[in-house]
Formats: sequence, C-alpha cells, structure tokens
Amino acid sequence: MDNPELLREFVRDFAEMPGMKILVHGGGVMASQMQKAMGMVPQMVEGRRVTDEETLKVVTMVYAGWCNKNITALLQAERCNAIGLTGADGNVIKAKKRAPVYVESLGQDVDYGYVGDVTADSVNARFIYSLLEKGIVPVFNAINHDGEGNLLNTNADTIASSLAIAMANYQYRTKREVCCRCEECTHCSDDGRLTHIVDLIYCFEKDGVLYDKDDDASVIEVIDREKFASLKAEGRVADGMIPKLTNSFKAIDSGVRKVIIKHAKNLLNSKGTTLK
Amino acid sequence: MDNPELLREFVRDFAEMPGMKILVHGGGVMASQMQKAMGMVPQMVEGRRVTDEETLKVVTMVYAGWCNKNITALLQAERCNAIGLTGADGNVIKAKKRAPVYVESLGQDVDYGYVGDVTADSVNARFIYSLLEKGIVPVFNAINHDGEGNLLNTNADTIASSLAIAMANYQYRTKREVCCRCEECTHCSDDGRLTHIVDLIYCFEKDGVLYDKDDDASVIEVIDREKFASLKAEGRVADGMIPKLTNSFKAIDSGVRKVIIKHAKNLLNSKGTTLK
Repeated sequence: MDNPELLREFVRDFAEMPGMKILVHGGGVMASQMQKAMGMVPQMVEGRRVTDEETLKVVTMVYAGWCNKNITALLQAERCNAIGLTGADGNVIKAKKRAPVYVESLGQDVDYGYVGDVTADSVNARFIYSLLEKGIVPVFNAINHDGEGNLLNTNADTIASSLAIAMANYQYRTKREVCCRCEECTHCSDDGRLTHIVDLIYCFEKDGVLYDKDDDASVIEVIDREKFASLKAEGRVADGMIPKLTNSFKAIDSGVRKVIIKHAKNLLNSKGTTLK
Repeated sequence: MDNPELLREFVRDFAEMPGMKILVHGGGVMASQMQKAMGMVPQMVEGRRVTDEETLKVVTMVYAGWCNKNITALLQAERCNAIGLTGADGNVIKAKKRAPVYVESLGQDVDYGYVGDVTADSVNARFIYSLLEKGIVPVFNAINHDGEGNLLNTNADTIASSLAIAMANYQYRTKREVCCRCEECTHCSDDGRLTHIVDLIYCFEKDGVLYDKDDDASVIEVIDREKFASLKAEGRVADGMIPKLTNSFKAIDSGVRKVIIKHAKNLLNSKGTTLK
C-alpha cells in the first residue's frame, strides 16, 4: 500500500487474474504516518493497533477512504470493475467488538478499543456472490461494523481467510439448477448445489515462508501439516509467521483448497510457498 | 455532517422514508478542519475547493472514508441496507477533470486541480437500479474518478441532480414486461418500459428559500419559473442560491418531478420550498 509503483504493478497483475476474485488490503504503515502527521502517537500491542475514537477516525479515513478508493480507481483504469467495501456496505461483514484481553507480555488486560473480530459466519456470502456473478470485483479493507452504528478496526488477514472460507462454503445454483458433474464440480452436493473452489493468496514483502529467515532465497515451496509441525519444532518459522500459518491450515480445514504465501510482485507466477 | 446529533436524527428520518432512495452527502467543513489539523491552508475560489494532490488525499479520506462509512454504519443500525459509494465503485459515476477556468472576480484563470464535473450522462443508472431493486440504498459522496485511475473532487449538489436526472430517465421493465397502466406509471413509454418518478430533495441549515434572507420565517412555499424570474429581478434570492435554483429547474426540465429545498431536520414533514 505504501509503495505507489509496486501498488500499480500489483493492481495490473490482479486485474489480469482470471476467474472470480476478491481483494483485501491493509494500509497500516500509512495509518501510522497519518497519525503522526496529526500529532498522535500510534499505540501497538503485540502488533495490533490500540484503536481509540481518534484512531478509529484515522484508520477509517486511510483504509476505507484513501487506500480503498485509490485501489478501486486504479483497478477501474485496468478495466477491472472493482467496488470498494467496508463491512458496513451492504451489511456485508459484521464484526464483534473485542472485549479487553489479557496480554502475557504486559502482564495485564488490554482494551484495544474500537477493534473487532470476524469469522466466516460474519460474512454475507450471498451479497458478495451477487456482485461476483455480475463480474464485479469486491475490494475490502480492514474496517467493519457492529450493526449498532459503530465502525470497528479488524485484522485484514482474518478478513481474507473469513471471506475465503465463507465463499468456499457458499452454495449457489447454476441457471439450469443441475450439477454439470464436470471435473470442476468435485465439491458438488448431491442435489445440484455447487460450491466454488477457493484459493487464498497472501501477498507480502518476502518471497514466501523462509527456512532461514536471514536468507531470502530459502523459500519453502510446499508446507503440509507434518512439515509445519517439524518447522515449529526446529524453531524455523519466525514468530509472526506462526499465527498466519495456523490460520491458513484452519482455512484449509474449513473448505479452502490451498493457501499461497508470496511476494506481491509474484502474483501471476508460481513463486511462493503453498500450504496444503 | 459536522453535527453528530443532527446527523443521527437525519439518518433516522432518512431510514424511515418509504420507496427507493439515494443519499448524497458533503463534508466540506470537516475537510477544512482536517486540512488545518495537518497544517494545510484550505484554498477556496468562489466557494469551490482548489484541490491539489495533498488536498485530494484529505477530501477522499474525509468524504469517502470517515463521513461515508459513518453514515453507512448509522443507516445499517436503523435497518436501512446502505452501501457507500464513490464514482469509482462499480464505475458508477465517471467525472471529467475540469480545465482551468477564467474567474472574473480574480481576473485570471484558476486551475482547480483534481476537480471534476459530472452530468446525468456520467451516471451508470443500470448499476444503481440493480442495487435499488434489491432494497439496497446507495450513499454517495463527492469523490468520483476519471476512468484513468485518478480520483476527482466534484460538487455534491451536482452529483445529486445528475443522479436524479439519470434515474428519472432510466427505463426498466417490470417482471411481466408489460406496463401496468396504473396511475403511478404516467411516465410509461408505449412499449411497456417504465421510468421512475423522481423527487430531488436538498437539505441544508435553513428552512427553505427565504424571501428576506435575514428573516428565517420568510420561507417561500412554492417557486415556479415566473416567481423565480421575479425574485431574481427583485434581488430577493441570495447569490449562493441562484445556481442551486437554476440547476433545480434544469433537473425539472430533464425529467425530475419536483425539487424541494428544506432544513435537514424537516425531512419527513412538508416544510420547505418546492420548485416545480
């Protein structure tokens, strides 16, 4: 998000991807910059932003305003019919405000403020499918709502996996209302209802999950559960990566075909780490 | 926009309005506040904001981010299924960047920067209708795009009249594809295509168009063209009101049934000025 050139390249690649697709973006670096420009001090606890009222205003402006609308306009310029959404729009994702949680590293409860949590059950898959079906590409950011009029700051990675799980389990019917029994429809239920095959791709600034975190070339091509267990046992996986991988395997357990972790610049090629 | 209590009341009233509806909002006061909080000096020429790159960022954050998503979340809390949109979302309104214009009061050309103009032809009425048909309520702000990847700051009043004209002229078909010939369908074309009856309501902080601008009780109930001409001749209409009224009559010429100018707090009652 904070590198305009890389963003433009990424948008071009994303527009070229075939099939139905959904984009979820962050913007944390820019939110912190904006907080500082306004004389605020960003407060992070274990990598998560403590979101008081003023901070909520800033993250909503940066994520749902500047970042989201810029990506949408850039995708439109690539003839990709994007629509930028928060969870409040069309009531598409409802989040639950997080109660204060005990943080071990601080030895005390932390109230994250206007921070919410989402699950696959929070997602209105039907509305999303009605857009996808028309060739419209939803672009999500980290802002959701609680249904009571409050916006909430949520985690973009969790939104992505919740969306992937929800769409993988959404049952739609073909126009003919029968299953075509083609190879693509291995997920068909017996009564002709179909589900989509969903892949979840996490893009970041590394080439994939690294065997040696100081060696950018040590990308692990495939990680299955066994491999994940042994990497953890060896202490090979960096701390920040463990929740990402754990959540990825949960997504696979819940119907997502595979999860790929790769550099944003490699969206269209096969480089990266595949979890399955 | 800048009065949270009045906004909440307005949102409650708007949610109660029957029928298909579209909301367009501003946020100029808050954008200027934000500019100042960031150490910028808002530049206005003849009531319009000069929009350089940094200003575009601020107005996009404030209008499309904070204001738009807050209204959307508040409407959702009132069980009104709102969706917040810029023109880039779903490619719903495409604006044209304004070339530098000669400003008489300054005696020179002014380049307004990232400022765009819209007309009814800029509006993708079909997409809007597909939302309205599902009971979804579009909420627009002043940010649109040029289709080339640039966001543009446009005038909310003009967006409202362009939307009203576009929707008044949009031809849809009933499920039975025949005209029901009921009283509501006076706009029917002969081949069974229907158009909607559209009213355009401008809400602001006065009770209506005032006969005496220093007397808030001097609201003119109805203004037709003749009355408008005589008010202008008498110098009764305040300068800022003349373009609003001129544009309103243009909207009526272009298919809008009537235009109402009223205080935001009077949305559900009959107070205000009706143009027809």
